[in-house]
This record gives sequence, C-alpha cells and structure tokens, in this order.
Amino acid sequence: MSPVTNRQLYLHQRPVGIPTADDIRLRTVDMTTVGDGEVLIENHYLSLDPAIRDWMSGNDTYMEPIGIGECIRSTTLGKVLESRHPDFVAGDYVQGLAVNGWEEYTINPGELLSKVPNDGKYPPRYYLSIFSGAMGLTPYFGMLELGCPVAGDTVLISAAAGAVGSIAGQIAKLKGCRVVGLTGTNEKAEWLVNELGFDAAINYKECENLSEEISKVCPERLDIFFDNVGGKILDAALLNLSDHARIVFCGAISSYNASEPVPGPYNYWQILAHSATVKGLLTTNYVDQFDRANTEIREWLESGKLRFSEDIVDGIENTVEAYTRLFSGMNKGKLLVRLAAADQ
Amino acid sequence: MSPVTNRQLYLHQRPVGIPTADDIRLRTVDMTTVGDGEVLIENHYLSLDPAIRDWMSGNDTYMEPIGIGECIRSTTLGKVLESRHPDFVAGDYVQGLAVNGWEEYTINPGELLSKVPNDGKYPPRYYLSIFSGAMGLTPYFGMLELGCPVAGDTVLISAAAGAVGSIAGQIAKLKGCRVVGLTGTNEKAEWLVNELGFDAAINYKECENLSEEISKVCPERLDIFFDNVGGKILDAALLNLSDHARIVFCGAISSYNASEPVPGPYNYWQILAHSATVKGLLTTNYVDQFDRANTEIREWLESGKLRFSEDIVDGIENTVEAYTRLFSGMNKGKLLVRLAAADQ
Repeated sequence: MSPVTNRQLYLHQRPVGIPTADDIRLRTVDMTTVGDGEVLIENHYLSLDPAIRDWMSGNDTYMEPIGIGECIRSTTLGKVLESRHPDFVAGDYVQGLAVNGWEEYTINPGELLSKVPNDGKYPPRYYLSIFSGAMGLTPYFGMLELGCPVAGDTVLISAAAGAVGSIAGQIAKLKGCRVVGLTGTNEKAEWLVNELGFDAAINYKECENLSEEISKVCPERLDIFFDNVGGKILDAALLNLSDHARIVFCGAISSYNASEPVPGPYNYWQILAHSATVKGLLTTNYVDQFDRANTEIREWLESGKLRFSEDIVDGIENTVEAYTRLFSGMNKGKLLVRLAAADQ
Repeated sequence: MSPVTNRQLYLHQRPVGIPTADDIRLRTVDMTTVGDGEVLIENHYLSLDPAIRDWMSGNDTYMEPIGIGECIRSTTLGKVLESRHPDFVAGDYVQGLAVNGWEEYTINPGELLSKVPNDGKYPPRYYLSIFSGAMGLTPYFGMLELGCPVAGDTVLISAAAGAVGSIAGQIAKLKGCRVVGLTGTNEKAEWLVNELGFDAAINYKECENLSEEISKVCPERLDIFFDNVGGKILDAALLNLSDHARIVFCGAISSYNASEPVPGPYNYWQILAHSATVKGLLTTNYVDQFDRANTEIREWLESGKLRFSEDIVDGIENTVEAYTRLFSGMNKGKLLVRLAAADQ
C-alpha cells in the first residue's frame, strides 16, 4: 500500500554556525502520486556528509544551494515501492546520489538513481558507506590521482578517523607510505593505529602547538597532506612540507559553519617556498574510472587489507543532532541515520 | 689598481612595511684583499627583485634571511678586476646569482658566479634582465611547466607589466592563448596591449569590484592565473576560475611588506569547487632545462616574438627609493640600478 504521508527534514532558515533544530525542521507532508518515469523510494538510510552543510548556505559552491523550505538534499539508500520508470521495479534497492533527501519517502525521476545489489554478500547500505563516492571513491582518487603516493613518503591525514580520512590513510599504507593521522579523541587515535594500521596518530585537541607536534612525529616532513579540515590544521601542516609536497584539498570542514568570510591559510607562502601543489578534489572528475576503482576497493576489503567503520544513528528525528557530531569531530567512520523502514 | 674602499647598502634593521633608508643604509667599508680561489668584481648593475624583501625579513623562506649588518644580497652584473679563481680572468663579465650584493665591489669565492658574453651582440646587463632566471626563466617555466597553456585558454596575469608578468603573458600568447593583464596604471595597460600584444589589460586601481571586472573581460573564465601578487587580486581571480584551472603561484608581492601575519585567500574554497590546482614555482627546479629554455627565449627575441622593458635607475644612492617602486606597482619591466662603473 502506498504511503499517504511523509516525514521530512527541510531547511527552515539558513544556519548561522552549526545547524540546529531551528534551522532544519521536521514536518509531515502528504505524498503525491508517482508520475510517468518516476520511482517511489522508501528510504532506509540517510547519508550525513559535510558537503550538505555547504548546500545549506547560499554560497557559491559546486552544487546549487538547498532552497528555503526544501527538503535537505542528500544521498540515501532505499527500496523501490513503486516504479513507473523502465529501469526500476518494486523491490529494487537503490541509491540516489545527492538528489534524494532526509525524508522517509522520495519520488525520484530516475535522476542519479542506481540499483544496488541485495544478494546477501554485503548489506545494501554499504553503498552509502564504503562503496559510495563519498567514502570509497573520494579517498581512492584523492590519494592515488592527486596525492600520487610513492613508497616511503610521509603522509598526514586530517579528520583521519572520518569516513574519507580513515580510507585515505589505509590506501597510502597499501602504497608503502608512512601514515600519520590527526584526530580529536585518544580513543580514535588508538583505533587508527591499532585497528587501521596507521603508523601514528595525533590528538590535535591535546596539542599546544600542533605544528611542532607534527614536526616531532614527522621528522622527515610531509610529502602528502590529505586535508579534510582546512583552517589552523592546514596552517600547521603547511609549516611541515617537504619540497614538492602534494596537498590534496578534499574538504574544509573547519569553515563550513562560519558566518563570516574565512581567511585562507596564513602559511599559503609555504606552497611556493616548497614548490608544493594544492589540488582541489572532485570525485566526479573520475566517473570513467569508477568501475575500476570499485573493483580494487572490493578486492582490498575481501582480502582484509581495508577496514572501515560505520557510525549508525537510529531515527529520522535524531538526524540533526547526529549531523552536528560531524563538526565536533565525534564521529568514527561513516555517519548514517537508519530509518524505521530499514530491514537490514 | 685595486679599490681601497667599497660603498655598500646593508641591513641596519629589519623593515616594518616598505623598506626605508632607515632600514637599509649606505656605508663605506675598507676592501679586504682577494684570497685564494676568490674573484674581485666591480659591480655595474644591481638587480632589484621582490624576493629580496623576503630575505630582509626573519621569516622562514626558501633562502636564508639577510643578517643585520650584512650587505643586501642580490644578483649583480659586473666585471672581474682580479681573479685568483681558475675559471675567471680579469676583464670577464660575470653574473653573481643571489650571492653578490648592493655594493660597488664584491669579493666572491666563485660561488654561483658565471661568466656572461661581452661579444657586442647583447649588452651584458641583459643577463640581469631577459637572460636572467628572474625575468626570463621564471615566467618561461612558470607558464609552460606549471601553467600548461593550451591554445584557446584564457590566461590572467597579475603584475603583468612587471619583469615576470610581461614575459609570462607573451609566452602564453605564443601558445595561442587569450591573455589579459592586471596592472596599476593606464599607461602600463596600454603598453601591455599595444606593445606586447596582450588581448586586454585591466587597471586594477580603477576597479570598484575587480572580480566583476575580470568577469566582464574574461567571460570564458580563467584557465590559467599566473600570480605574482596574492592578496585581494588572488581572491578576485579565484572567483573566476574555470574547472581544472591552474594557478601558477610565482609570488605574493602584496604581502612582502606586511608586519602582521597575512591571511591566505578568502576564496581558497574555489580551488576545490573548480578542481583547480595551485602550483608553487621555484625556477631552480628546472636547472637541467635552463640551456634549452635560454635557447628558445633567444630565438623569440631575435625573431621579434618577445619584447621586454628595462627600468634603469642610476646611482647606488638611489637604490632604496627605486626599490620601493616595485611595491607601489610603478616599475615597467625589469628594475635595475646602474652603478657609476658601468661602461655599457
């Protein structure tokens, strides 16, 4: 039976600082009927990604902002309840890439929607975590195509226990690098070293002088800095560059909640002083290589060379609170919200 | 007859802001005798380069700072008066690369010293201007190796009428690009277009909103931004990037006189949003290609495809005042000081 109503989180006002339940509100709306070429999806998991914060702003960015009153756009994993689109049938598990939203049901015109296997080998939700662009492909292309790791390189990762950082660091290890992670709790620092095989991890919240701490832990200086954070952490890393260092600019989560213009790195000059390169990473540049990348990621997973963590919160009503954990550095691995309809 | 005394400019105190005659003072010192392996040089021309300002600071940089009380380090062109070094004889014209100084005579232990031809074809001082690393090789490698120009690309150059910018723009033109220069006077803007063949030039001092002006003049957006300036000009350029744009980071003259830490570009995020790349340029990375580059630069000069300007000021006592013109954007082409001993 088709659902009659839909609970969804919508943008009530543009957040100033970290989003709150005042900015993103829950409402119940009536369902519309499924039109020609459309698919009705019952969402099981919502993906909570830093990039969504940027879409909540009115800023110039690489995607359209979310409009006031609109459902919060995100990637979701769900099951098709009804299809009037030739490529999908009821019962399919599907991922809607950055076009679905934080809601129980989505009607999608087949746009950026793809079927995911439900063959018992992996839970379908893996397509929001390790098999997703955001967790798997982003660090894959960022590290390999932009970082260009060479065995023996020293690699520093910011937000190293996050979805992207935790994978980026392991990929650098697979390439024979020495890998150091920056993270915000001792528990996560231990996890990086003991479970994921990082060579060292620094709890940046306990450092009086982060640049000096990086110098101590990375006396050979940095060949690659894989940056998800920006701000002061980027500045500390810039003071430790090797000549010809590569800075993979994957994100700048430290600035996503800023209400004033955020200055770029004060140590920008170090890029010149060390003939370094800053490379902006958009995974969509590598669409033609996604299949090859996914194959390699699966091989690493199946052979135990790559590990990952999912941080799963239950209930659409807990989404906003969960989302703020991204910005306080409290999540470990990929942050997901599981909705009531989830069957696995 | 050997000189007995030497007038030299030395660093009396580290400048705060634009260097003044209080910071850099003229003194007369006694000459020492020429030791084994050393060369006595009579300087004819001093090279006035933005990088020297950085050496006057105590900052971490890619060369040692100039010590308090030391002669201001620079590249000079001079004639050998006496040689106890096997590679040089009296009468040779020589260039001392960033190891000589702002003084009438230099005793050099053969370090980074090279003979330059005096065969009547070109004035030897060209080895401080168009045949120097700073004016010829820097834009050559910066544009070709880091900018990677492709015919049809839109290229923006900051400090376009300066020694580096004026050559960088012409090299991009030779590669079939559309080239726009940013400069600080209408006279220089006209020179760029009418004499050097730039497609357009913007007097940034007359723009209320530089980013919008760049948008108007470069509706196709920027494939390459060759940056000598940094600061607000870099921020305006970042708002106009094409996807996959290359930012050649050659200098940041807007910040060399800062007495407080200078923020990096506020629009740093645009690097990610456009999958752009910022590449720090140090010409010394290309030493093994200098001969090839110099050959090509000469061919362009001799066939009239490349033009350049020298801005020559007479008298060691006018050096500091001349030097400040670099920072007010008043020089056109390569800024040199001609000393009394110059014979051509």
